[in-house]
Amino acid sequence: MIYLDGNSLGLLPKATAARVNEAITQEWGQGLIRAWNSAGWISAPQRVGDKIAQLVGAKPGELVATDSTSINLYKVLSAALNIAASDAPSRKVLVSERSNFPTDLYIAESICRERGLQLKLVEPEYIAVALTDDVAVMMLTHVNYRTGAMHDMAAMTKAAHQAGILTVWDLAHSAGAVPVDLHDSQADFAVGCGCKYLNGGPGAPAFVWANPKHVDRFWQPLAGWWGHTAPFEFTPDYRPAPGIARFLCGTQPILSMTALECGLDTVLAAEPLCGMAALRVKSLALTDLFIELVEARCAGHGLALATPREHSQRGSQVCLTRAEGAYAIVQALIARGVIGDFRASDPSTLRQAQVRPSSGRTGMPDILRFGFTPLYLGFEEVYQAVEHLRQVLDTGEWQEPEFNQKQAVT
Amino acid sequence: MIYLDGNSLGLLPKATAARVNEAITQEWGQGLIRAWNSAGWISAPQRVGDKIAQLVGAKPGELVATDSTSINLYKVLSAALNIAASDAPSRKVLVSERSNFPTDLYIAESICRERGLQLKLVEPEYIAVALTDDVAVMMLTHVNYRTGAMHDMAAMTKAAHQAGILTVWDLAHSAGAVPVDLHDSQADFAVGCGCKYLNGGPGAPAFVWANPKHVDRFWQPLAGWWGHTAPFEFTPDYRPAPGIARFLCGTQPILSMTALECGLDTVLAAEPLCGMAALRVKSLALTDLFIELVEARCAGHGLALATPREHSQRGSQVCLTRAEGAYAIVQALIARGVIGDFRASDPSTLRQAQVRPSSGRTGMPDILRFGFTPLYLGFEEVYQAVEHLRQVLDTGEWQEPEFNQKQAVT
Repeated sequence: MIYLDGNSLGLLPKATAARVNEAITQEWGQGLIRAWNSAGWISAPQRVGDKIAQLVGAKPGELVATDSTSINLYKVLSAALNIAASDAPSRKVLVSERSNFPTDLYIAESICRERGLQLKLVEPEYIAVALTDDVAVMMLTHVNYRTGAMHDMAAMTKAAHQAGILTVWDLAHSAGAVPVDLHDSQADFAVGCGCKYLNGGPGAPAFVWANPKHVDRFWQPLAGWWGHTAPFEFTPDYRPAPGIARFLCGTQPILSMTALECGLDTVLAAEPLCGMAALRVKSLALTDLFIELVEARCAGHGLALATPREHSQRGSQVCLTRAEGAYAIVQALIARGVIGDFRASDPSTLRQAQVRPSSGRTGMPDILRFGFTPLYLGFEEVYQAVEHLRQVLDTGEWQEPEFNQKQAVT
Repeated sequence: MIYLDGNSLGLLPKATAARVNEAITQEWGQGLIRAWNSAGWISAPQRVGDKIAQLVGAKPGELVATDSTSINLYKVLSAALNIAASDAPSRKVLVSERSNFPTDLYIAESICRERGLQLKLVEPEYIAVALTDDVAVMMLTHVNYRTGAMHDMAAMTKAAHQAGILTVWDLAHSAGAVPVDLHDSQADFAVGCGCKYLNGGPGAPAFVWANPKHVDRFWQPLAGWWGHTAPFEFTPDYRPAPGIARFLCGTQPILSMTALECGLDTVLAAEPLCGMAALRVKSLALTDLFIELVEARCAGHGLALATPREHSQRGSQVCLTRAEGAYAIVQALIARGVIGDFRASDPSTLRQAQVRPSSGRTGMPDILRFGFTPLYLGFEEVYQAVEHLRQVLDTGEWQEPEFNQKQAVT
């Protein structure tokens, strides 16, 4: 198998099965309720958060692992909008990118409905001009899930701040994949997920970070007992914990958290050897090679590149478009053991698009998406993946009926 | 070990370790991203939810396993308050019980702050008279976590409805412990947790139910992609799924969800043999025996019963109070292998209480809490637990310094 989907669900680290089994049989099975203290379950969100912090330029104690990315986004958008409502009440707009990951847009839509704000969605090239004096918050995903295009976090944050706008960053496709420095970029809030380049397993807990200058200013709405300053005093009134702990809500899924910690330990074990900077060099070499080989060996098959060639604008994935057959080609590759994924066209961009309808759908062309996790993917696998793609296209095997039966894919 | 804390963290079922190991090594390790479909991860919230539904009188498709109890409470309180704001906008009060589990009160406090509503907390005996025409929602926990006192869900719901008030029930200490019939009681919304009597493991996913008559009326605010009507179409605008799926938000922690399903399968395996009604008979026999033995064998040691003697008002736990030493006595029992837990006095009730300060704290007396899980606890264990308690009190060993060092306990 050649696994080019670590940007969706990372590989299983060797240590995880035994470690989770220990958590089940020893900590839960033998320790039972006492394991909240004896096995350190109680401090897991902070302990695991400190490990993630090392990968995104945050300091110890500033980040917690908890809940899902969607839920964490609700917390930080609420906090950011509370700050804006206090400091600049005339700002009533939340700006984001039209092709942002949908759950980010849905959460933003929900929170704007609640508060009577406007959600303004723009194409990436128009974000800078959309930073007007009615905007409260700019919410962006650092690396786009469909195209792999990467924003310049420091530059976009600076532009937002110069316009008096707070920034919320989604690092789902960044943490563990590309260098991120939340402090240097002076970001305001960030969230991200544990199941992709952090190898935490399916539905691993996500994470949330707030710039220390903001963290104690407001409650976040999901004010559960784990965000209380003294949760085990069981007082009836809420007093938010100082610092990032106030972004915790309820009890975390400890078995999934244990697997996430294994995934992080695997990533961090590579850190002293190479660091994110070296992983980035390898990531760019992998994606450069893939692009070069596809263009050399699959020419004439109608593939186009949706990912920026410019290194500074590229995450750790490469996306190709084709006017038809993207889904079936991905299925044919999977049948050969080359696991990438398919992302459907985006009907919302139809009005802007100059591309003809594909696969019976309207809108932008469907996408063939390939993730390149520098931690465990080699150059030979890139070569072989392209060779399979060439064969699928040359033989036309993707046109066989078995590859055209669509079902839900993640 | 005699485990009397299954009301906080249920025992590890025999099947769980092997099943979770299979999910890790086969489904994740081999299936990778494909396991979302091939291993049924994608439908886990509904599949596991249908199993919980059987234990709380809900119908298939009406309940999902997801997120934490606190987060689910935020969803249903928002939904209930949206309904009230639409149907009875003059109602501006949320009524709950002062000794409700704190996270329930914190979430209610947060949501009332956001919406400019009043949170009115009353003692249990005053709930009925608090159901006035300014009240929008009554939020109660069915079985009280500190005292084990159980509300009559059908009667309280009927009283609320007669006063034009919607009901939100927390079943954390009920599901799998006592008979619950959400349909017969005509409840409006319910949440509950998976880590206690459902034996789902530490921080197991919680659950959420909405009465079918309400479920499609409003969005809930945590409007993430898993609650979208077509999450894998990746459209930029949110359209809530019909039915209870709209109460989903982000991706669920699949390893913890897998353990929860094992716990439920264990409970449901007992169902055809005995059913919740027979489990209830055993639960009452266990708690009756414990009360009887404590009163007979530990007389003269200052213990008082905080749990109702009346069967219809008792959950599946027994709580004792003592003017001093509750924490140390629990620690001395734990050292003997009898695992109960300690719940500190509640400072909020000081003004109502006629009890002198205990353990250097103010307020109601501290509580020694013992949970009796009918699925796996025997009568001989009850006898032995009381014998240990008698010895701890007779010998005064709880007064040794080692048992008086407090630390965070859950």
